[in-house]
Amino acid sequence: MAVVHTRAVRFEEVDAAGIVFFGCYANYAHEAMEVLFAGVEGGYPHLINVRRVGFPAVGLEVSYQAPLRYGDVLQIEVACGRLGNRSADLVYRFVRQDQVCVATMKHTVVVSDLDAMASVQMPADVRAILEANLQASAGTSMPHQ
Amino acid sequence: MAVVHTRAVRFEEVDAAGIVFFGCYANYAHEAMEVLFAGVEGGYPHLINVRRVGFPAVGLEVSYQAPLRYGDVLQIEVACGRLGNRSADLVYRFVRQDQVCVATMKHTVVVSDLDAMASVQMPADVRAILEANLQASAGTSMPHQ
Amino acid sequence: MAVVHTRAVRFEEVDAAGIVFFGCYANYAHEAMEVLFAGVEGGYPHLINVRRVGFPAVGLEVSYQAPLRYGDVLQIEVACGRLGNRSADLVYRFVRQDQVCVATMKHTVVVSDLDAMASVQMPADVRAILEANLQASAGTSMPHQ
Amino acid sequence: MAVVHTRAVRFEEVDAAGIVFFGCYANYAHEAMEVLFAGVEGGYPHLINVRRVGFPAVGLEVSYQAPLRYGDVLQIEVACGRLGNRSADLVYRFVRQDQVCVATMKHTVVVSDLDAMASVQMPADVRAILEANLQASAGTSMPHQ
Repeated sequence: MAVVHTRAVRFEEVDAAGIVFFGCYANYAHEAMEVLFAGVEGGYPHLINVRRVGFPAVGLEVSYQAPLRYGDVLQIEVACGRLGNRSADLVYRFVRQDQVCVATMKHTVVVSDLDAMASVQMPADVRAILEANLQASAGTSMPHQ
Repeated sequence: MAVVHTRAVRFEEVDAAGIVFFGCYANYAHEAMEVLFAGVEGGYPHLINVRRVGFPAVGLEVSYQAPLRYGDVLQIEVACGRLGNRSADLVYRFVRQDQVCVATMKHTVVVSDLDAMASVQMPADVRAILEANLQASAGTSMPHQ
Repeated sequence: MAVVHTRAVRFEEVDAAGIVFFGCYANYAHEAMEVLFAGVEGGYPHLINVRRVGFPAVGLEVSYQAPLRYGDVLQIEVACGRLGNRSADLVYRFVRQDQVCVATMKHTVVVSDLDAMASVQMPADVRAILEANLQASAGTSMPHQ
Repeated sequence: MAVVHTRAVRFEEVDAAGIVFFGCYANYAHEAMEVLFAGVEGGYPHLINVRRVGFPAVGLEVSYQAPLRYGDVLQIEVACGRLGNRSADLVYRFVRQDQVCVATMKHTVVVSDLDAMASVQMPADVRAILEANLQASAGTSMPHQ
């Protein structure tokens, strides 16, 4: 299962080469991750601001297959590719309105106490969402292979 | 050999978790890449704007080892980890003022005609810079191993 | 009449002071402006990319009345405050989920040929949208007074 | 007297219209402001992170006179245009490498306790810097008139 977040490329995301800057895909991924975790107790901003639990990245792998331009609309699919006790791999597919998969991403996060900036056991509500969105092929292959 | 670019974390690069957003490292890398290529004929902006040659990313691998906060100053080292005919791997180390390496990155780019958005043979001046900054260990290991 | 665009504050829009960076309101305004102009022939990205007509800012006035934090949701109202032959004032109200108006903005744009970067007569479809969204009080007062 | 901060337009600051996005001037201004305040006790990031004193904007007025493109280099001059007990107007001139003043800005800030998010008396070291950079014409005219 995967959660899908749809959004248009924004005017200012285009760079001097006329395509979306390669770093913006991290912003797109984070948006989709916030949608994935929208159902945690109190919501995702509450998790960050009040419960002080967050998901700093420790790894990122992106494969870019086609450019994005202003006017394109993306479907961002996010699922859990690997589920550990204190970390997880989130896997993403970025699909353009013409059904071309323009990029795939693996985003490894560590569940962390944001005040101590140290890893913590995954809260039950966070784990439940990741389990519900665990990819069938989890752990057996790279997302873009 | 490597080129080193120094810059401070900016006020607005910090996110709601209080650390630099993981996507900002792509911006940092691009800045260092622009310094690396500053010596091309006419300069890097001229390469993009007038010669219409650019380096869209096809791959990105980042390993994050420690957070960055507002007030930190980075040294970004960039070198060429692999040099092909139409593509190259740029490798980066992000070193904080306390000498901690907070992240490493491999950034695979394809030399492209920005109007056709298609790969082209690498111009001689671009190649010369990459050759001059070729890592000793090029191609034999991941930058963060 | 005004067009309303709703969006949440994004994780990375918060700065090192813990509130939304003051420059982000320009991004918010531009998003609302794109919604306002969505109905032009071919859509707004087509206007920019193909018709090569755009709206560079020549003036900006913002009054900030309350901070925005991660977790807040905005309603951005945009209307036309003044309609000229080649320029217009767009006026915005930024309203938080608790109904507090956190900011108002006046954004003066000049309709421009993006290749020549010179002002042009306003296209009929652009004018029609601005007329349909002309504020009753247009021109008689600042939006935030 | 004014402090001058020089920086190049960055690759990703250009928008889909091919010029620097109008909101980026707020980022430019903030950079110059950080240079202005570099001499406070412990430095500006220490002021924000530890002393928890900051300068949220309550007003912003920008006049844009010419576009910026990738490859341009800016000199950003910042001075104090008005000095109050708890607030100040910072005034900026953005000058391109060809000596064209591309924009001017007035940025009204309120000295604030960032935890209480409430105005406070201006610390002596902050005031000293603003006094040392007070414009001769302070308060008598808009920066762009």
